[in-house]
Amino acid sequence: MKNRIITISREFGSGGRTIGGRVAEKLGIPCYDSVLITKAAEQSGFDKIYVEEMGEHTAGGWFSTVNVSRRFGPTSQDMLWFIQQKVISEIAAEESCVIVGRCADYILRGKADCLNVFIHADKEKRAERIVKEYGEQELSPLRLLEDKDKRRATYYRFYTHMEWGKIQNYHIALDSGVLGIDRCVELIAVLY
Amino acid sequence: MKNRIITISREFGSGGRTIGGRVAEKLGIPCYDSVLITKAAEQSGFDKIYVEEMGEHTAGGWFSTVNVSRRFGPTSQDMLWFIQQKVISEIAAEESCVIVGRCADYILRGKADCLNVFIHADKEKRAERIVKEYGEQELSPLRLLEDKDKRRATYYRFYTHMEWGKIQNYHIALDSGVLGIDRCVELIAVLY
Repeated sequence: MKNRIITISREFGSGGRTIGGRVAEKLGIPCYDSVLITKAAEQSGFDKIYVEEMGEHTAGGWFSTVNVSRRFGPTSQDMLWFIQQKVISEIAAEESCVIVGRCADYILRGKADCLNVFIHADKEKRAERIVKEYGEQELSPLRLLEDKDKRRATYYRFYTHMEWGKIQNYHIALDSGVLGIDRCVELIAVLY
Repeated sequence: MKNRIITISREFGSGGRTIGGRVAEKLGIPCYDSVLITKAAEQSGFDKIYVEEMGEHTAGGWFSTVNVSRRFGPTSQDMLWFIQQKVISEIAAEESCVIVGRCADYILRGKADCLNVFIHADKEKRAERIVKEYGEQELSPLRLLEDKDKRRATYYRFYTHMEWGKIQNYHIALDSGVLGIDRCVELIAVLY
Protein backbone atom coordinates (compact mmCIF):
# COMPACT_ATOMS: atom_id res chain seq x y z
CA MET A 1 0.00 0.00 0.00
CA LYS A 2 1.24 3.47 -0.84
CA ASN A 3 2.20 5.63 2.12
CA ARG A 4 -0.18 8.39 3.07
CA ILE A 5 1.24 11.52 4.65
CA ILE A 6 -0.63 14.11 6.68
CA THR A 7 1.20 17.43 6.61
CA ILE A 8 0.19 19.99 9.20
CA SER A 9 0.98 23.67 8.77
CA ARG A 10 -0.07 25.90 11.61
CA GLU A 11 -0.15 29.36 13.05
CA PHE A 12 1.99 29.66 16.16
CA GLY A 13 -0.01 28.82 19.28
CA SER A 14 -2.93 27.25 17.38
CA GLY A 15 -2.25 23.80 18.80
CA GLY A 16 -1.23 22.35 15.42
CA ARG A 17 1.63 20.35 16.91
CA THR A 18 -0.63 18.87 19.59
CA ILE A 19 -3.27 18.05 16.96
CA GLY A 20 -0.63 16.40 14.76
CA GLY A 21 0.59 14.26 17.64
CA ARG A 22 -2.91 13.18 18.61
CA VAL A 23 -3.93 12.38 15.01
CA ALA A 24 -0.82 10.23 14.65
CA GLU A 25 -1.56 8.46 17.92
CA LYS A 26 -5.15 7.82 16.89
CA LEU A 27 -4.05 6.39 13.55
CA GLY A 28 -1.10 4.42 14.94
CA ILE A 29 1.45 6.16 12.74
CA PRO A 30 4.49 8.25 13.72
CA CYS A 31 4.47 12.03 14.02
CA TYR A 32 7.59 13.85 12.85
CA ASP A 33 8.37 17.08 14.52
CA SER A 34 11.17 17.15 17.08
CA VAL A 35 12.18 13.68 15.83
CA LEU A 36 12.55 15.12 12.35
CA ILE A 37 14.61 17.99 13.69
CA THR A 38 16.94 15.57 15.42
CA LYS A 39 17.28 13.45 12.28
CA ALA A 40 18.07 16.52 10.21
CA ALA A 41 20.56 17.68 12.78
CA GLU A 42 22.33 14.35 12.86
CA GLN A 43 22.62 14.24 9.09
CA SER A 44 23.68 17.81 8.68
CA GLY A 45 26.20 18.02 11.42
CA PHE A 46 24.47 21.20 12.54
CA ASP A 47 23.98 21.73 16.20
CA LYS A 48 20.55 20.43 17.29
CA ILE A 49 19.52 23.70 18.92
CA TYR A 50 20.52 25.59 15.78
CA VAL A 51 18.37 23.33 13.57
CA GLU A 52 15.42 23.65 15.91
CA GLU A 53 15.68 27.44 15.81
CA MET A 54 16.56 27.90 12.14
CA GLY A 55 14.67 25.09 10.44
CA GLU A 56 11.51 27.04 9.89
CA HIS A 57 12.49 30.69 10.16
CA THR A 58 14.46 33.22 8.25
CA ALA A 59 17.47 34.44 10.14
CA GLY A 60 17.87 38.19 10.11
CA GLY A 61 16.31 40.75 7.79
CA TRP A 62 15.30 39.81 4.29
CA PHE A 63 17.97 42.00 2.78
CA SER A 64 20.91 40.53 4.60
CA THR A 65 19.79 36.92 4.16
CA VAL A 66 19.00 37.08 0.49
CA ASN A 67 21.36 39.53 -1.10
CA VAL A 68 24.50 39.68 0.90
CA SER A 69 25.14 36.20 2.20
CA ARG A 70 24.61 34.46 -1.15
CA ARG A 71 27.38 36.39 -2.88
CA PHE A 72 29.63 33.71 -1.47
CA GLY A 73 27.39 30.72 -2.34
CA PRO A 74 24.61 29.00 -0.39
CA THR A 75 24.15 30.06 3.21
CA SER A 76 24.09 27.61 6.08
CA GLN A 77 20.32 28.08 6.04
CA ASP A 78 20.18 27.00 2.40
CA MET A 79 22.18 23.89 3.28
CA LEU A 80 19.75 23.12 6.05
CA TRP A 81 16.82 23.56 3.62
CA PHE A 82 18.34 21.01 1.23
CA ILE A 83 18.94 18.58 4.07
CA GLN A 84 15.42 18.96 5.39
CA GLN A 85 14.03 18.33 1.91
CA LYS A 86 16.04 15.13 1.72
CA VAL A 87 15.02 13.92 5.19
CA ILE A 88 11.32 14.65 4.62
CA SER A 89 11.32 12.94 1.22
CA GLU A 90 13.00 9.87 2.70
CA ILE A 91 10.55 9.65 5.60
CA ALA A 92 7.57 9.94 3.24
CA ALA A 93 8.98 7.20 1.02
CA GLU A 94 9.49 4.95 4.02
CA GLU A 95 6.20 5.09 5.92
CA SER A 96 2.81 6.70 6.42
CA CYS A 97 3.09 9.47 8.99
CA VAL A 98 2.18 12.96 10.18
CA ILE A 99 4.69 15.75 9.56
CA VAL A 100 4.22 19.04 11.39
CA GLY A 101 5.56 22.19 9.74
CA ARG A 102 8.89 22.38 7.90
CA CYS A 103 7.22 23.13 4.52
CA ALA A 104 6.47 19.40 4.14
CA ASP A 105 3.36 20.21 2.08
CA TYR A 106 5.55 21.93 -0.51
CA ILE A 107 8.43 19.46 -0.35
CA LEU A 108 6.16 16.46 -0.99
CA ARG A 109 4.04 18.04 -3.75
CA GLY A 110 3.64 15.52 -6.55
CA LYS A 111 5.94 13.08 -4.72
CA ALA A 112 3.63 11.57 -2.11
CA ASP A 113 -0.04 11.00 -1.37
CA CYS A 114 -0.60 13.88 1.05
CA LEU A 115 -3.46 15.34 3.00
CA ASN A 116 -2.43 18.96 3.58
CA VAL A 117 -3.89 20.54 6.70
CA PHE A 118 -3.72 24.11 8.04
CA ILE A 119 -4.58 24.95 11.64
CA HIS A 120 -5.30 28.51 12.73
CA ALA A 121 -7.06 30.36 15.54
CA ASP A 122 -7.68 33.96 16.46
CA LYS A 123 -4.86 35.86 18.12
CA GLU A 124 -6.46 36.14 21.55
CA LYS A 125 -7.00 32.40 21.82
CA ARG A 126 -3.48 31.68 20.60
CA ALA A 127 -2.00 34.18 23.05
CA GLU A 128 -3.84 32.45 25.89
CA ARG A 129 -2.56 29.07 24.74
CA ILE A 130 1.02 30.30 24.45
CA VAL A 131 1.08 31.54 28.03
CA LYS A 132 -0.49 28.28 29.25
CA GLU A 133 1.89 26.16 27.20
CA TYR A 134 5.18 28.03 27.34
CA GLY A 135 4.73 30.31 30.36
CA GLU A 136 5.44 34.04 30.39
CA GLN A 137 8.10 35.23 27.95
CA GLU A 138 10.07 38.38 27.49
CA LEU A 139 7.93 39.39 24.50
CA SER A 140 4.17 39.79 25.04
CA PRO A 141 2.32 36.70 23.74
CA LEU A 142 0.68 38.74 20.96
CA ARG A 143 4.04 40.13 19.80
CA LEU A 144 5.57 36.67 20.05
CA LEU A 145 2.99 35.00 17.83
CA GLU A 146 3.01 37.82 15.31
CA ASP A 147 6.78 37.55 15.12
CA LYS A 148 6.76 33.75 14.77
CA ASP A 149 4.02 33.74 12.10
CA LYS A 150 5.80 36.44 10.14
CA ARG A 151 9.06 34.50 10.21
CA ARG A 152 7.32 31.25 9.20
CA ALA A 153 5.58 33.00 6.31
CA THR A 154 8.82 34.63 5.16
CA TYR A 155 10.75 31.36 5.32
CA TYR A 156 8.00 29.53 3.42
CA ARG A 157 7.79 32.20 0.72
CA PHE A 158 11.54 32.41 0.34
CA TYR A 159 12.11 28.70 -0.20
CA THR A 160 8.87 27.69 -1.92
CA HIS A 161 7.92 30.88 -3.79
CA MET A 162 4.42 30.22 -2.53
CA GLU A 163 2.22 31.93 -0.01
CA TRP A 164 2.02 30.43 3.48
CA GLY A 165 -1.55 30.10 4.75
CA LYS A 166 -3.17 30.55 1.32
CA ILE A 167 -6.50 28.73 1.49
CA GLN A 168 -6.08 27.02 -1.90
CA ASN A 169 -2.89 25.24 -0.76
CA TYR A 170 -4.62 23.07 1.85
CA HIS A 171 -7.15 20.26 1.55
CA ILE A 172 -8.63 21.16 4.91
CA ALA A 173 -8.15 24.24 7.08
CA LEU A 174 -9.54 24.39 10.60
CA ASP A 175 -10.04 27.07 13.24
CA SER A 176 -8.91 25.23 16.38
CA GLY A 177 -9.97 28.15 18.58
CA VAL A 178 -13.62 27.74 17.60
CA LEU A 179 -13.78 24.03 16.82
CA GLY A 180 -11.52 22.88 19.65
CA ILE A 181 -8.55 20.51 19.56
CA ASP A 182 -10.63 17.31 19.92
CA ARG A 183 -12.86 18.14 16.97
CA CYS A 184 -9.87 19.00 14.79
CA VAL A 185 -8.26 15.65 15.61
CA GLU A 186 -11.47 13.77 14.70
CA LEU A 187 -12.00 15.65 11.44
CA ILE A 188 -8.47 15.03 10.23
CA ALA A 189 -8.34 11.41 11.34
CA VAL A 190 -11.59 10.59 9.52
CA LEU A 191 -10.02 11.77 6.24
CA TYR A 192 -7.10 9.39 6.50
CA MET B 1 -32.62 27.07 21.36
CA LYS B 2 -30.56 29.68 19.58
CA ASN B 3 -30.49 29.39 15.80
CA ARG B 4 -27.34 28.04 14.24
CA ILE B 5 -26.41 29.26 10.76
CA ILE B 6 -24.01 27.60 8.34
CA THR B 7 -22.65 30.14 5.87
CA ILE B 8 -20.99 28.76 2.77
CA SER B 9 -18.63 30.88 0.70
CA ARG B 10 -17.27 29.22 -2.38
CA GLU B 11 -15.14 29.53 -5.46
CA PHE B 12 -17.20 29.39 -8.64
CA GLY B 13 -17.60 25.80 -9.84
CA SER B 14 -16.39 24.23 -6.58
CA GLY B 15 -19.79 22.70 -5.84
CA GLY B 16 -20.40 24.93 -2.81
CA ARG B 17 -24.03 25.46 -3.66
CA THR B 18 -24.63 21.72 -4.07
CA ILE B 19 -22.82 21.04 -0.79
CA GLY B 20 -24.92 23.69 0.97
CA GLY B 21 -28.12 22.16 -0.31
CA ARG B 22 -27.12 18.65 0.71
CA VAL B 23 -25.96 19.72 4.18
CA ALA B 24 -29.29 21.47 4.72
CA GLU B 25 -31.18 18.40 3.54
CA LYS B 26 -29.17 16.13 5.83
CA LEU B 27 -29.83 18.40 8.81
CA GLY B 28 -33.46 19.06 7.97
CA ILE B 29 -33.04 22.83 7.79
CA PRO B 30 -33.63 25.22 4.86
CA CYS B 31 -30.94 26.35 2.46
CA TYR B 32 -31.11 29.94 1.26
CA ASP B 33 -29.74 30.65 -2.14
CA SER B 34 -32.19 31.26 -4.97
CA VAL B 35 -34.94 31.49 -2.33
CA LEU B 36 -33.00 34.27 -0.69
CA ILE B 37 -32.55 36.01 -4.01
CA THR B 38 -36.28 35.89 -4.64
CA LYS B 39 -37.04 37.22 -1.15
CA ALA B 40 -34.59 40.07 -1.64
CA ALA B 41 -36.03 40.79 -5.06
CA GLU B 42 -39.57 40.91 -3.75
CA GLN B 43 -38.64 43.30 -0.99
CA SER B 44 -36.51 45.54 -3.11
CA GLY B 45 -38.76 45.84 -6.08
CA PHE B 46 -35.75 45.03 -8.23
CA ASP B 47 -36.19 42.71 -11.12
CA LYS B 48 -35.42 39.12 -10.06
CA ILE B 49 -32.91 38.53 -12.84
CA TYR B 50 -31.10 41.74 -11.92
CA VAL B 51 -30.80 40.70 -8.28
CA GLU B 52 -29.52 37.28 -9.25
CA GLU B 53 -26.88 38.85 -11.46
CA MET B 54 -25.91 41.80 -9.26
CA GLY B 55 -26.34 40.47 -5.74
CA GLU B 56 -22.83 39.11 -5.46
CA HIS B 57 -20.84 40.93 -8.10
CA THR B 58 -19.54 44.38 -8.77
CA ALA B 59 -21.07 45.95 -11.82
CA GLY B 60 -18.58 47.60 -14.12
CA GLY B 61 -15.05 48.73 -13.42
CA TRP B 62 -14.03 49.70 -9.92
CA PHE B 63 -13.57 53.31 -10.91
CA SER B 64 -17.01 53.89 -12.33
CA THR B 65 -18.83 52.04 -9.54
CA VAL B 66 -17.05 53.66 -6.66
CA ASN B 67 -16.19 57.18 -7.64
CA VAL B 68 -18.60 58.37 -10.23
CA SER B 69 -21.96 56.86 -9.37
CA ARG B 70 -21.85 57.82 -5.68
CA ARG B 71 -21.54 61.53 -6.38
CA PHE B 72 -25.33 61.42 -6.55
CA GLY B 73 -25.89 59.22 -3.46
CA PRO B 74 -26.07 55.44 -3.06
CA THR B 75 -26.13 53.39 -6.25
CA SER B 76 -28.80 50.80 -6.96
CA GLN B 77 -26.17 48.22 -6.02
CA ASP B 78 -25.72 49.87 -2.61
CA MET B 79 -29.48 49.73 -2.07
CA LEU B 80 -29.45 46.06 -2.94
CA TRP B 81 -26.60 45.51 -0.45
CA PHE B 82 -28.63 47.10 2.36
CA ILE B 83 -31.70 45.05 1.45
CA GLN B 84 -29.69 41.82 1.35
CA GLN B 85 -28.21 42.61 4.76
CA LYS B 86 -31.70 43.08 6.14
CA VAL B 87 -33.07 39.88 4.58
CA ILE B 88 -30.13 37.77 5.76
CA SER B 89 -30.31 39.16 9.30
CA GLU B 90 -34.04 38.44 9.45
CA ILE B 91 -33.67 34.89 8.19
CA ALA B 92 -30.92 34.18 10.74
CA ALA B 93 -33.05 35.56 13.55
CA GLU B 94 -35.96 33.41 12.46
CA GLU B 95 -34.50 29.92 12.01
CA SER B 96 -31.44 27.70 11.77
CA CYS B 97 -30.40 27.37 8.14
CA VAL B 98 -27.66 27.21 5.51
CA ILE B 99 -26.91 30.40 3.55
CA VAL B 100 -24.81 30.12 0.41
CA GLY B 101 -22.78 33.15 -0.62
CA ARG B 102 -24.06 36.73 -0.42
CA CYS B 103 -21.43 37.75 2.20
CA ALA B 104 -23.60 36.12 4.89
CA ASP B 105 -20.46 35.33 6.94
CA TYR B 106 -19.71 39.04 7.18
CA ILE B 107 -23.30 40.22 7.59
CA LEU B 108 -23.93 37.87 10.53
CA ARG B 109 -20.63 38.48 12.35
CA GLY B 110 -21.35 38.94 16.03
CA LYS B 111 -25.10 38.71 15.37
CA ALA B 112 -25.64 34.96 15.04
CA ASP B 113 -24.10 31.64 15.98
CA CYS B 114 -22.40 30.83 12.68
CA LEU B 115 -20.24 28.09 11.27
CA ASN B 116 -18.39 29.76 8.41
CA VAL B 117 -17.34 27.41 5.62
CA PHE B 118 -15.25 28.00 2.49
CA ILE B 119 -15.28 25.56 -0.43
CA HIS B 120 -12.58 25.62 -3.09
CA ALA B 121 -11.05 23.34 -5.72
CA ASP B 122 -8.33 23.61 -8.30
CA LYS B 123 -9.16 25.38 -11.54
CA GLU B 124 -9.08 22.29 -13.76
CA LYS B 125 -11.60 20.43 -11.61
CA ARG B 126 -13.84 23.48 -11.41
CA ALA B 127 -13.68 24.01 -15.16
CA GLU B 128 -14.74 20.40 -15.69
CA ARG B 129 -17.62 20.84 -13.27
CA ILE B 130 -18.79 24.06 -14.92
CA VAL B 131 -19.04 22.43 -18.33
CA LYS B 132 -20.89 19.45 -16.82
CA GLU B 133 -23.22 21.65 -14.81
CA TYR B 134 -23.87 24.63 -17.06
CA GLY B 135 -22.91 23.32 -20.52
CA GLU B 136 -20.59 25.11 -22.93
CA GLN B 137 -20.54 28.91 -22.65
CA GLU B 138 -19.26 31.73 -24.77
CA LEU B 139 -16.28 32.25 -22.45
CA SER B 140 -13.90 29.32 -21.89
CA PRO B 141 -14.64 27.65 -18.52
CA LEU B 142 -11.28 28.77 -17.12
CA ARG B 143 -11.91 32.39 -18.14
CA LEU B 144 -15.45 32.17 -16.79
CA LEU B 145 -14.40 31.00 -13.33
CA GLU B 146 -11.55 33.48 -13.11
CA ASP B 147 -13.97 36.25 -14.01
CA LYS B 148 -16.63 35.13 -11.52
CA ASP B 149 -14.14 34.67 -8.66
CA LYS B 150 -12.60 38.05 -9.33
CA ARG B 151 -15.99 39.74 -9.28
CA ARG B 152 -17.03 37.93 -6.08
CA ALA B 153 -13.78 38.94 -4.39
CA THR B 154 -14.16 42.56 -5.52
CA TYR B 155 -17.76 42.74 -4.34
CA TYR B 156 -16.85 41.21 -0.98
CA ARG B 157 -13.91 43.55 -0.45
CA PHE B 158 -15.90 46.60 -1.48
CA TYR B 159 -18.79 46.05 0.92
CA THR B 160 -17.02 44.30 3.81
CA HIS B 161 -13.51 45.81 3.65
CA MET B 162 -12.30 42.28 4.21
CA GLU B 163 -10.52 39.77 2.02
CA TRP B 164 -12.62 37.07 0.36
CA GLY B 165 -11.11 33.59 0.76
CA LYS B 166 -8.73 34.56 3.57
CA ILE B 167 -8.13 31.38 5.57
CA GLN B 168 -8.55 33.08 8.97
CA ASN B 169 -12.13 34.13 8.14
CA TYR B 170 -13.51 30.58 8.01
CA HIS B 171 -13.96 27.93 10.68
CA ILE B 172 -13.48 25.19 8.11
CA ALA B 173 -12.20 25.34 4.54
CA LEU B 174 -12.37 22.33 2.26
CA ASP B 175 -10.95 21.35 -1.12
CA SER B 176 -13.98 19.72 -2.75
CA GLY B 177 -11.90 18.66 -5.76
CA VAL B 178 -9.68 16.40 -3.63
CA LEU B 179 -12.07 15.45 -0.82
CA GLY B 180 -15.19 15.06 -2.99
CA ILE B 181 -18.68 16.49 -2.49
CA ASP B 182 -19.89 13.64 -0.22
CA ARG B 183 -16.99 14.01 2.20
CA CYS B 184 -17.47 17.77 2.37
CA VAL B 185 -21.16 17.33 3.20
CA GLU B 186 -20.32 14.84 5.98
CA LEU B 187 -17.58 17.00 7.51
CA ILE B 188 -19.78 20.09 7.65
CA ALA B 189 -22.87 18.27 8.91
CA VAL B 190 -20.93 16.67 11.75
CA LEU B 191 -19.97 20.14 13.03
CA TYR B 192 -23.56 21.30 13.31
